[in-house]
Amino acid sequence: MTTNTKKRDNLTITYIGGGSRGWAWNLMSDLALEPALSGRVKLYDIETEAALANEKIGNMVSARPDTVGKWKYETSPSLETALEGADFVVISILPGSFEEMASDVHAPEEYGIYQSVGDTAGPGGLLRALRTIPMFETIARAICETCPAAWVINYTNPMALCVRTLYEVFPGIKAFGCCHEVFGTQKLLAMVAREELGAQDATRKDIEVNVLGINHFTWLDRASYRGTDLFPAYAAFADRHFSEGYEGAEGGSWLNSWFASAERVKFDLFRRFGLIAAAGDRHLAEFMPPWYLKDPATVASWKFSLTPVSWRIENARKLREKSARLASGAEPFILASSGEEGVGQIKALLGLGSILTNVNLPNHGQIEGLPAKAVVETNAVFSGDSVRPVLAGFLPSSIHGHVARHVANHETILAAALTHDARAAFPAFLNDPLMTATPAEAEKLYAKMIAATSRHFADWKV
Amino acid sequence: MTTNTKKRDNLTITYIGGGSRGWAWNLMSDLALEPALSGRVKLYDIETEAALANEKIGNMVSARPDTVGKWKYETSPSLETALEGADFVVISILPGSFEEMASDVHAPEEYGIYQSVGDTAGPGGLLRALRTIPMFETIARAICETCPAAWVINYTNPMALCVRTLYEVFPGIKAFGCCHEVFGTQKLLAMVAREELGAQDATRKDIEVNVLGINHFTWLDRASYRGTDLFPAYAAFADRHFSEGYEGAEGGSWLNSWFASAERVKFDLFRRFGLIAAAGDRHLAEFMPPWYLKDPATVASWKFSLTPVSWRIENARKLREKSARLASGAEPFILASSGEEGVGQIKALLGLGSILTNVNLPNHGQIEGLPAKAVVETNAVFSGDSVRPVLAGFLPSSIHGHVARHVANHETILAAALTHDARAAFPAFLNDPLMTATPAEAEKLYAKMIAATSRHFADWKV
Amino acid sequence: MTTNTKKRDNLTITYIGGGSRGWAWNLMSDLALEPALSGRVKLYDIETEAALANEKIGNMVSARPDTVGKWKYETSPSLETALEGADFVVISILPGSFEEMASDVHAPEEYGIYQSVGDTAGPGGLLRALRTIPMFETIARAICETCPAAWVINYTNPMALCVRTLYEVFPGIKAFGCCHEVFGTQKLLAMVAREELGAQDATRKDIEVNVLGINHFTWLDRASYRGTDLFPAYAAFADRHFSEGYEGAEGGSWLNSWFASAERVKFDLFRRFGLIAAAGDRHLAEFMPPWYLKDPATVASWKFSLTPVSWRIENARKLREKSARLASGAEPFILASSGEEGVGQIKALLGLGSILTNVNLPNHGQIEGLPAKAVVETNAVFSGDSVRPVLAGFLPSSIHGHVARHVANHETILAAALTHDARAAFPAFLNDPLMTATPAEAEKLYAKMIAATSRHFADWKV
Amino acid sequence: MTTNTKKRDNLTITYIGGGSRGWAWNLMSDLALEPALSGRVKLYDIETEAALANEKIGNMVSARPDTVGKWKYETSPSLETALEGADFVVISILPGSFEEMASDVHAPEEYGIYQSVGDTAGPGGLLRALRTIPMFETIARAICETCPAAWVINYTNPMALCVRTLYEVFPGIKAFGCCHEVFGTQKLLAMVAREELGAQDATRKDIEVNVLGINHFTWLDRASYRGTDLFPAYAAFADRHFSEGYEGAEGGSWLNSWFASAERVKFDLFRRFGLIAAAGDRHLAEFMPPWYLKDPATVASWKFSLTPVSWRIENARKLREKSARLASGAEPFILASSGEEGVGQIKALLGLGSILTNVNLPNHGQIEGLPAKAVVETNAVFSGDSVRPVLAGFLPSSIHGHVARHVANHETILAAALTHDARAAFPAFLNDPLMTATPAEAEKLYAKMIAATSRHFADWKV
Repeated sequence: MTTNTKKRDNLTITYIGGGSRGWAWNLMSDLALEPALSGRVKLYDIETEAALANEKIGNMVSARPDTVGKWKYETSPSLETALEGADFVVISILPGSFEEMASDVHAPEEYGIYQSVGDTAGPGGLLRALRTIPMFETIARAICETCPAAWVINYTNPMALCVRTLYEVFPGIKAFGCCHEVFGTQKLLAMVAREELGAQDATRKDIEVNVLGINHFTWLDRASYRGTDLFPAYAAFADRHFSEGYEGAEGGSWLNSWFASAERVKFDLFRRFGLIAAAGDRHLAEFMPPWYLKDPATVASWKFSLTPVSWRIENARKLREKSARLASGAEPFILASSGEEGVGQIKALLGLGSILTNVNLPNHGQIEGLPAKAVVETNAVFSGDSVRPVLAGFLPSSIHGHVARHVANHETILAAALTHDARAAFPAFLNDPLMTATPAEAEKLYAKMIAATSRHFADWKV
Repeated sequence: MTTNTKKRDNLTITYIGGGSRGWAWNLMSDLALEPALSGRVKLYDIETEAALANEKIGNMVSARPDTVGKWKYETSPSLETALEGADFVVISILPGSFEEMASDVHAPEEYGIYQSVGDTAGPGGLLRALRTIPMFETIARAICETCPAAWVINYTNPMALCVRTLYEVFPGIKAFGCCHEVFGTQKLLAMVAREELGAQDATRKDIEVNVLGINHFTWLDRASYRGTDLFPAYAAFADRHFSEGYEGAEGGSWLNSWFASAERVKFDLFRRFGLIAAAGDRHLAEFMPPWYLKDPATVASWKFSLTPVSWRIENARKLREKSARLASGAEPFILASSGEEGVGQIKALLGLGSILTNVNLPNHGQIEGLPAKAVVETNAVFSGDSVRPVLAGFLPSSIHGHVARHVANHETILAAALTHDARAAFPAFLNDPLMTATPAEAEKLYAKMIAATSRHFADWKV
Repeated sequence: MTTNTKKRDNLTITYIGGGSRGWAWNLMSDLALEPALSGRVKLYDIETEAALANEKIGNMVSARPDTVGKWKYETSPSLETALEGADFVVISILPGSFEEMASDVHAPEEYGIYQSVGDTAGPGGLLRALRTIPMFETIARAICETCPAAWVINYTNPMALCVRTLYEVFPGIKAFGCCHEVFGTQKLLAMVAREELGAQDATRKDIEVNVLGINHFTWLDRASYRGTDLFPAYAAFADRHFSEGYEGAEGGSWLNSWFASAERVKFDLFRRFGLIAAAGDRHLAEFMPPWYLKDPATVASWKFSLTPVSWRIENARKLREKSARLASGAEPFILASSGEEGVGQIKALLGLGSILTNVNLPNHGQIEGLPAKAVVETNAVFSGDSVRPVLAGFLPSSIHGHVARHVANHETILAAALTHDARAAFPAFLNDPLMTATPAEAEKLYAKMIAATSRHFADWKV
Repeated sequence: MTTNTKKRDNLTITYIGGGSRGWAWNLMSDLALEPALSGRVKLYDIETEAALANEKIGNMVSARPDTVGKWKYETSPSLETALEGADFVVISILPGSFEEMASDVHAPEEYGIYQSVGDTAGPGGLLRALRTIPMFETIARAICETCPAAWVINYTNPMALCVRTLYEVFPGIKAFGCCHEVFGTQKLLAMVAREELGAQDATRKDIEVNVLGINHFTWLDRASYRGTDLFPAYAAFADRHFSEGYEGAEGGSWLNSWFASAERVKFDLFRRFGLIAAAGDRHLAEFMPPWYLKDPATVASWKFSLTPVSWRIENARKLREKSARLASGAEPFILASSGEEGVGQIKALLGLGSILTNVNLPNHGQIEGLPAKAVVETNAVFSGDSVRPVLAGFLPSSIHGHVARHVANHETILAAALTHDARAAFPAFLNDPLMTATPAEAEKLYAKMIAATSRHFADWKV
């Protein structure tokens, strides 16, 4: 692949959700560490104060002598203003409040439906999608009018439906969706290479994989370490660690982290289906029938957690405080590579060297058997002003059935949200694999969840 | 369409499952009433006595003066002998015994899984498929070697997988699958035309429909009576009759028949999905999550029955006795049109007038969005030596998700059966919509059901 | 198929090109002979006098006691007025004048390029398409706004591009294109059945065919007479008549008719490719390299004619006179079935009995291997408010290459015409099989042909 | 992309056509310069002496102290022996003699048909294909039986049909076809970057392109230099150099080289079609109608040559002599990178770093609109034991028509060659764009060309 190294200046990156206290800080760090790029970052957030704090933090970082990538951060008063002149648009928003997310995640528990995340699939993912799609409709229209040639990187969940909406509303958009879940599985595979093949220095970058599926329900049908097929090694590894789980890859015990797991779901899926599921166990569990999420005891037996939204609320409070400290200089901003590939992708799109990585894009045949337009996750080649998926092949029928079900639900949800018709999404609500309630119970639950987030459905048919 | 009326003599029809006491008698009747055709019918059955009885009955019918279609019935000692010289092959077998079917249908009840038929979907349908596919493999090979140019009509369930197997084993086969379930829905629609439109003389032949789906889980997205769209009429009809059900179309109350229903499932599906489901409620219910089959009380509330296999065993006994009476002349064989379209299809294939009817065939694009090779049900034009599906369009995503799930299961089951690997079918067993048991319970149930029909799995990996 | 016979009154048929002195009179005749339908026919023509004459003629026909189908004919002052209330729209226009057609057909002769018709393919067909597409754009827009639910029947050439344009501009249109060329080949096949099989009473209605290709370049890969494969018979027939030609099917010698042929092109194509070409030789010859149209002597050796446009001009004059005589009552209008299927199609669309016939529609897979959207000709089932193509299969590669070349040209021409960019169509002009001139010569010819019809290209990029 | 650098020893490369005095020497050089790989190269050639000479040369190279890649060269007595143990198979054969090629290239001149190469398209390419396909049938069968898991790299022409045959005969083969023509266009584009953008250090490796088409008739719809779109620059360059041509990219004047050109064909195609044709002018000209090959004067005006086969015969004689000198040590073997990517591909397939390059593979959707199975050329990602095409999009209709015509011809030729039926290929012979002869003349020419190479058609239907 090409390895150009020329520098690019005067770039404009627009960050929608620019008050973010996670992804935004990652991006600041990665930009600060990248010598080849410079320009300005325009921050837009419905919470203006958060954007202003990040403006301050970003400019402080830029002013530091150890910062090689110099950027000017500025807060924009409106979406349209923010998009003016954009070369790149990053979308990383929280669609709705954490209080609303509490309804998404916990309301179904009344009917025995447990969700570990609740932002992609499950009843919670559906409700979140319904309120997110109109937001992405607005964003897509604004991009179409203001900066149609900009590259758009989405980090928001539900990933597939966010990207799907962008293309539905503005078919000419140059958008893709990024998610680091596959990277986590590559890390696990590097552990496998070390443990099974004795490759002590293996890192995730050494692990070549073929990726196919939908975001958070992604699969690998090939994985190799320097040309050596990792499937036999992974089989041995999964067998050995199945009962107790394996906690090495995520840097901590699942008992101490709402986000970690012991990979037992992943091992179980491998033993059942023969392919490597490539997302965190908390995400994977939500795409299947309630094998792993039947009740809290079952979840515990699989060694992962039901992340409570109360924790997210508390964590958000802490991050707000940290933001204040960073903005005031009371706490130093630590520069460190985030492990994300956003900046590498931007460089490749600017013609500064091609890269191959996994990404979410509308299906044009990169996955056989899934419908055109569905947003799928596969590897793609990033090069100058171009992202081209590789042909990833097809899923075995035993997995395809599960994936196709979610894809069909996505299409149902999208059509409902675009027409503001909540009734039209109910068949997808009922057809979610976690939905064990009867149709009558599901009706009640759905009404309750709509009501709990009713400000998003003011003009909807409910 | 063409309306040729020339006569065809010296035809050879091979009937596999020729001892049948249902479909075979229907065919005898229809052939006897058809003046344009004559020849011989070769009966083959693993139960030779049953075939011999039908030979006797058939020849008695042929000898009657009121019979206009004259056929010679003869029993063949082997499949190969039976197929020699065949112009048409009819396959209508019982795959396994009723005792085995009792396991299919009733074993899952221990885990709260109820099946109204158990021959197509559900755990029972899967087990039946596993033992049927190898039988159809044998039949396909024999046809390929003995009469590759013959037209093959399958009536056996599970329909889709039977036809799928024939084409998988002998891609050049000229086979299709016939089922009368859609006709029943057309009868119901004729009732709708009478009740809603005042069309007192409407019959099922007046109802034009567009058919799309898979056998027993078939849908209509258009239905018209003499050019008048029936959807508004059906909507009014379904609303009015939803609570109490409607029992006019099937000629009797569901309370008195293991096969009748009050169409409440059909009405519910219409109200949820907007399309007309076109099969008996007992079949439809098995393709959905356990909305209608949760437990016997739920089934009763939807006004259809869980057909007990004990009834089938008892009924088979009665039919055996009736067969003896018919063969001995003690009971007269009553000539009456069966309502099936087999003889009409045979005539069309012989060039004696085209017909349009619904039929099960491998997908070559007649349904968009379902995979190639999957056996789907749509309308097709039958004419001289040719069956061509019409383009039926695509299912809405809310229904597609349910259909695609079964299609994926079919592919998993087929691959497992062809390789004699029962383990490989377990993912489909787990992914059946009726499967509410945990994976561990499902493992136990599966093992039990395999064991109960173990003579079919002698050389399998289990 | 259904055989409903109910009557339909109060229909509105809009006839665009309603001053037509060919297709319009055919329609009058067929409507007058059809007892099941009645209503009004609204005539619209840019030549208002022609429409007024037809209004008079039509109403005289309707008033006759031997007329069973009663229609009121009325002339509309504008396209929009004409379309108001339309249940059916018939489009049969002459795109441009015969003087312009003289340029289409004869200008290329200067470069040794001869065209027998010049209205579909060849340089003449391309020029005609360029000026026709904007007319159909206007019509499609008007239908979309005024009568979007009407069924639209096109008889205008170039057929494929006319129908393609209607769907491109108004994707929801219910349009199809009808052409009787296949009927002519069915007549020839009826002759074959008589001569080779001794079927003395065979008529074209007895000939079942599978149709696939594009209009005027249509092929049959199956043809049967009452179930008997006609291919061996046709092979014998073609061999026997190849040298001298066969003139029985078209009712006269090619020497006395600008439209007849001796079928030698058809026989040659069969002997080369193995499929039956199903259009008149004059049309077929224009789709191939100049095997048959190299020069007038070659054309004569293949026993068909280069229809001179001077003849069309003269014939138009005669028809104008005939129109005057008919309108004044000086000449009686002769009622006779035209042999066209338009009225039968209308009846089927009204739910009065299904029919199967060949028709031009966008490809949704009815022909494998040709692109979606391309307008192709295959059989289709007409029933209540519905036209559904049958799956026709695919063309052998040896023919596919020729058809695909024209389809690609169509797409190039369409895009050029919709953007009013004559330069963009030049690659198609150069890639026409009849184009033997060098690119430089072709440039000159193209400029000349554009200039000769320049009133259609006022605002174009040339 | 991954950048692993581990070493691989004990590899076995089988070279079919191992007596080659061009590609084989290139490979020797590249292997000798590559430190990461070692093993043995098994040479097989129907001309054993040539293989033995290369064995000697290769081992002398390996023995040199400046050689970092150590390989043992050995001659195999039979194809099967040669394939035993192969990890990689290289196929680079001359199908038939140069005397036979003289017929391919020059026999058509009698009918005014001129060919600049005659090995891919045109009447000569067709004849060559007919005799080559059975050779590749043999090779594919042998690989299937002896080393089914080996990676197979083809360099033989006609490329598309050679690779197509390998997959047709052994669908599980891991084969691809390599050709350096696109590299040449990248070199030209590097010149463009220098001349138009002032990028003085631009090399072909800096030029990112999207490749789509078929071998030797390949197109670029995107080309960029470090992120800068090269299309405007190329347009300016092509306009400026169109009249006189540009001779900088190929290192010499077309007047002094049978292989060079002045890129005038390429510029003309760009100005007509808007895409960059990416092969040598001599190849490109053969895929179009005789715009560039009408006669020798036309060819000269386009500034490229009709490579005479007499030159090839003379050149082969010189290479034989050179081979003798190299084998005896009289002439030193010069180690220099060949510019080919074969060794880089081998390394990538061994997991030693991914690369992106253009390659010929069966179409699985990498080019929309071309049929499945057709062998097309696009970019692909090479990584551990895997080659995955990127989605390249589709050709504009104006170019697609030309490409699709050749693809259809390929399918016709393949079917004819596999059934040993020369008659069946004649439609493709007639449908070649260079075929300006009448069908009757073409028959004569075809018969003559078959006769001139008759030893290859001993058991064929001619």
